[in-house]
Amino acid sequence: MTSILNQHEDYSQAEEAYGFPLIIKQLLNRAKIASTQQTISYADKVTYTYAEFFKRINRLANVLKNLGLQAGDVVAVMDWDSHRYLEAYFAVPMSGMILQTVNVRLAEDKVLYTINHAKPKALLLNAEFEPMAKNYRHEAPSIEKIIWLDDAGFDDANFDGTGFDEVEYSEDNIKTKQADIPDYVEGEYEAMLAAVSDAFDFPDFDENTIATTFYTSGTTGDPKGVFFTHRQIVLQTLSSTLASALSAEGQGARYNDVYMPMTPLFHVHAWCWPYGATMIGLKQVYPGRYLPEVLVNLIEHHKVTLSHGVPTILQMLIKEMATRGRKFNGLKLSVGGSKLNEGLAEAALENGIEFISGFGMSESCPVLARMAFGDQTNTMTTTEEINYRCLSGSPIMLVSMEIWDENGKALPMDGESTGELVVRAPWLTQSYFKNADAGNELWRGGWMHTQDIACISPNGTLKITDRLKDVVKSGGEWISSLEVENILSFHPSVAEVAIIGVADERWGERPLALVVLKPEHTDTKAEDILAIGHQAVEKGYLPKYGVPSEIKFLIEMPKTSVGKLDKKKMRMMYTEKLI
Amino acid sequence: MTSILNQHEDYSQAEEAYGFPLIIKQLLNRAKIASTQQTISYADKVTYTYAEFFKRINRLANVLKNLGLQAGDVVAVMDWDSHRYLEAYFAVPMSGMILQTVNVRLAEDKVLYTINHAKPKALLLNAEFEPMAKNYRHEAPSIEKIIWLDDAGFDDANFDGTGFDEVEYSEDNIKTKQADIPDYVEGEYEAMLAAVSDAFDFPDFDENTIATTFYTSGTTGDPKGVFFTHRQIVLQTLSSTLASALSAEGQGARYNDVYMPMTPLFHVHAWCWPYGATMIGLKQVYPGRYLPEVLVNLIEHHKVTLSHGVPTILQMLIKEMATRGRKFNGLKLSVGGSKLNEGLAEAALENGIEFISGFGMSESCPVLARMAFGDQTNTMTTTEEINYRCLSGSPIMLVSMEIWDENGKALPMDGESTGELVVRAPWLTQSYFKNADAGNELWRGGWMHTQDIACISPNGTLKITDRLKDVVKSGGEWISSLEVENILSFHPSVAEVAIIGVADERWGERPLALVVLKPEHTDTKAEDILAIGHQAVEKGYLPKYGVPSEIKFLIEMPKTSVGKLDKKKMRMMYTEKLI
Repeated sequence: MTSILNQHEDYSQAEEAYGFPLIIKQLLNRAKIASTQQTISYADKVTYTYAEFFKRINRLANVLKNLGLQAGDVVAVMDWDSHRYLEAYFAVPMSGMILQTVNVRLAEDKVLYTINHAKPKALLLNAEFEPMAKNYRHEAPSIEKIIWLDDAGFDDANFDGTGFDEVEYSEDNIKTKQADIPDYVEGEYEAMLAAVSDAFDFPDFDENTIATTFYTSGTTGDPKGVFFTHRQIVLQTLSSTLASALSAEGQGARYNDVYMPMTPLFHVHAWCWPYGATMIGLKQVYPGRYLPEVLVNLIEHHKVTLSHGVPTILQMLIKEMATRGRKFNGLKLSVGGSKLNEGLAEAALENGIEFISGFGMSESCPVLARMAFGDQTNTMTTTEEINYRCLSGSPIMLVSMEIWDENGKALPMDGESTGELVVRAPWLTQSYFKNADAGNELWRGGWMHTQDIACISPNGTLKITDRLKDVVKSGGEWISSLEVENILSFHPSVAEVAIIGVADERWGERPLALVVLKPEHTDTKAEDILAIGHQAVEKGYLPKYGVPSEIKFLIEMPKTSVGKLDKKKMRMMYTEKLI
Repeated sequence: MTSILNQHEDYSQAEEAYGFPLIIKQLLNRAKIASTQQTISYADKVTYTYAEFFKRINRLANVLKNLGLQAGDVVAVMDWDSHRYLEAYFAVPMSGMILQTVNVRLAEDKVLYTINHAKPKALLLNAEFEPMAKNYRHEAPSIEKIIWLDDAGFDDANFDGTGFDEVEYSEDNIKTKQADIPDYVEGEYEAMLAAVSDAFDFPDFDENTIATTFYTSGTTGDPKGVFFTHRQIVLQTLSSTLASALSAEGQGARYNDVYMPMTPLFHVHAWCWPYGATMIGLKQVYPGRYLPEVLVNLIEHHKVTLSHGVPTILQMLIKEMATRGRKFNGLKLSVGGSKLNEGLAEAALENGIEFISGFGMSESCPVLARMAFGDQTNTMTTTEEINYRCLSGSPIMLVSMEIWDENGKALPMDGESTGELVVRAPWLTQSYFKNADAGNELWRGGWMHTQDIACISPNGTLKITDRLKDVVKSGGEWISSLEVENILSFHPSVAEVAIIGVADERWGERPLALVVLKPEHTDTKAEDILAIGHQAVEKGYLPKYGVPSEIKFLIEMPKTSVGKLDKKKMRMMYTEKLI
């Protein structure tokens, strides 16, 4: 260890003192002592203890080493949320390698773009994505080794409505897996793990070593690569877990929670919750591919209490429970990724989901803000509470924020002054991968630019009013597309709504509403929906110029691979007269 | 900022990227946005907002700078727990200076020893300690500047049983303070703050800069100096706050807690809670000198919910509430510093105090372990629960622990194997100040030696069985003095009990019990108390050789300056036939 002390020799370090780098292996320290008998489950397929999990991390590290991979090499994963993915979350960076979490929901050419850009030497490949992989062999020459992941051998497992038959790993099901794998792969994951030692001595190294890389979804141009160090992941994990845990009963993380991700592990480290849940030593469940029925089965069977997801997931859960005629019993769900509208928020509370909104982005590891529940909601009306809960929370520990005008001048935090949100935190990507120009633009003025338009109230509550590029500029005034969407979402016929700015000779831009109606309300007229906008103007919630000039009805809303509204595509469709 | 990335140029940092050092000023980031209107109170004397607190930190930094003090200089504080002390907790290290928290409860010659050893250039001196300070002027030549702290001007404030008349700072009371200060000081704190700007631009610097220093209480030889970096304090604050917050309702820290320290600010950073409470932005109360009546008045008036203290404080609170014929309503009290015995634990629960035990030491900043309340106590009987709650908890996040035998070999964590507890964590003193030999001894083998004898159960619960130097070795067997003390503490006549090993020709050592009887039970016989020991042997809780051979009754138990049993003094008293 190099000395961690920087002053004169009186404060020198003892000869054998341990300097303690903030590296991912340290996140396991508590669980290795306190949680060896706690369990981790993969959907309805397998359940094992943390003790076994630690051994499998060691085995995976031995496999990677035996394949000739070295510190600094990139190892990509293409998988749904599995225990194997969690093992890679630890074993890959703990070996000094860089974990690339490939967004498998992107279009195939974009997936290939990210792989050719990050240049992984090895790929952990779920059998489901084999068709894509075949192409990579010719088009992604960096990949030298492919490890095959599949669920063969687990066919016996099933959910009978009351519980799962869980299958333990056995020689038999490992053999089944071996039967049918392509010849171009190195081997099957379980067989390879079984063939090596369960001991591995993970070395210490510089905490500023890169641990992970992944790509923004690329709604503007090619996907951009972000990257995070071990230190950044450890600090984000500590701080975001703390910001959750300090919340009131029913809203904060606890030692006795059961955790399951509903933001994919390929999406910004699943908001670092898999690292946090493992650090605490929680019981964990990994759901595989996100199918509403499976998710709800797993929540009910494993008594999941702690999860997270984008608003689309929230919608999916509510719909599935409606089918079953049941409600949740206070599932704690962190919601972020895109703004939650108040209609959905109301439905969530009615369905027993305690959603906790927050704010973050790919560039920020991701969590920057989170709703801090003390007792402030106790005295609110339901409407006030929903309104409050749809804001984006307050900065989590260590995070610094400012609201800047167009000249980079900080505006007051008075709940009214609106400008671009800029941030500082210990876990922000320090640039874009092989794209110094975009990185310098991201960091101009020494603060990271979120490209979100926001204001902050005197009590520190963050309100995102728009994406910088989505704001509608009408007659010199800014119109928040999120605000208008929120208001129109209250109409009972509206399933989904998006506002985009379209060119207008007189006003420069005017807001256009794109609406998907609920199946049972397809005869609703545009005027009926706009009436809600006019009502909001009368009540002073919206300026007059904020009411859309027109509504266009769509069958399906264009969305990005991670379920966000794809306004770039909408604007393109409008320009090309496709809508 | 130097680059925080260590790999090839593809991962290079953007030109203006902010590397975010973990320095104490960053602990204020959240509160500066979210808690400006939250309050901090000094006893019954003054209440101000965080907004004012931030300005006073700036003012104090300007005062220190105007006195010619520079980065690296040591600034000592001799004060009871005050808002001024909290201001120094931030302003001194944020200025790059080193805060020495002087233990004012040590004997005068020891206080002088610690000051002459750390060599502060400036001293913030509470008027109460003037007699000592007069001596320092001649005997502690390092001190060039003294700033005078007192409570003059606050005479109007008083507690009338229902509330306080709080006095705001005004020119009048600042003048009163000026009236009567000694000529050898630079000035009075309030007047000096009032005379300078409330703006100060705290610089960034290396997070490995030393922030604080203080001295172990020196039960063995001269006090030894420990020292902590900014990074270490930030990490301890994040991790120990998190370990608290994850606990079940009524036991964990929350956003709506009201915090008051009952471990002095001069004692291991008051367990870093003042840093944590400020980081979260909690309402805070600083109680001045610890007088039982004042503490309880403040708890009741300010509705304090979150505190911490050694077992002696717990005893003091229970006694004071008995006088008032009242109970607490679930005060969350972290207990550490010395082992809690089960008799006291039972009384605490009966009196509405939710105590949470933990483990730490001066060398460890201090928190290493803490009871993690999930739902495991729900199914316990009261006796089982008390037993469990008197253990020392499980390692907090990032902490690694081992139990070593005398040859440095790690023993299994089976709840039975007992040896020295050794630890690794990101916040351990890296040596002793100007005492490399002791530092090297502390860190031999790359782990920090706690000198505590312990075992760890398979679920990670730490049980401290003795201090290495307090263990009684009888006939080749180790007897845990703590265990014997615990058993004898159940006798209804026993107020306090201590076990020490005394030389014995046949057995090497034998345990001797020193007992202070309750005032109403002074006629209790030694045999009555030993009978509890024999009963414990019969039930299998204690080996036969663990029953003390003799009991000696004392009027008062020898204790260290921080309220721990002073076994060194007891052994000395026995050797010199004083008992």
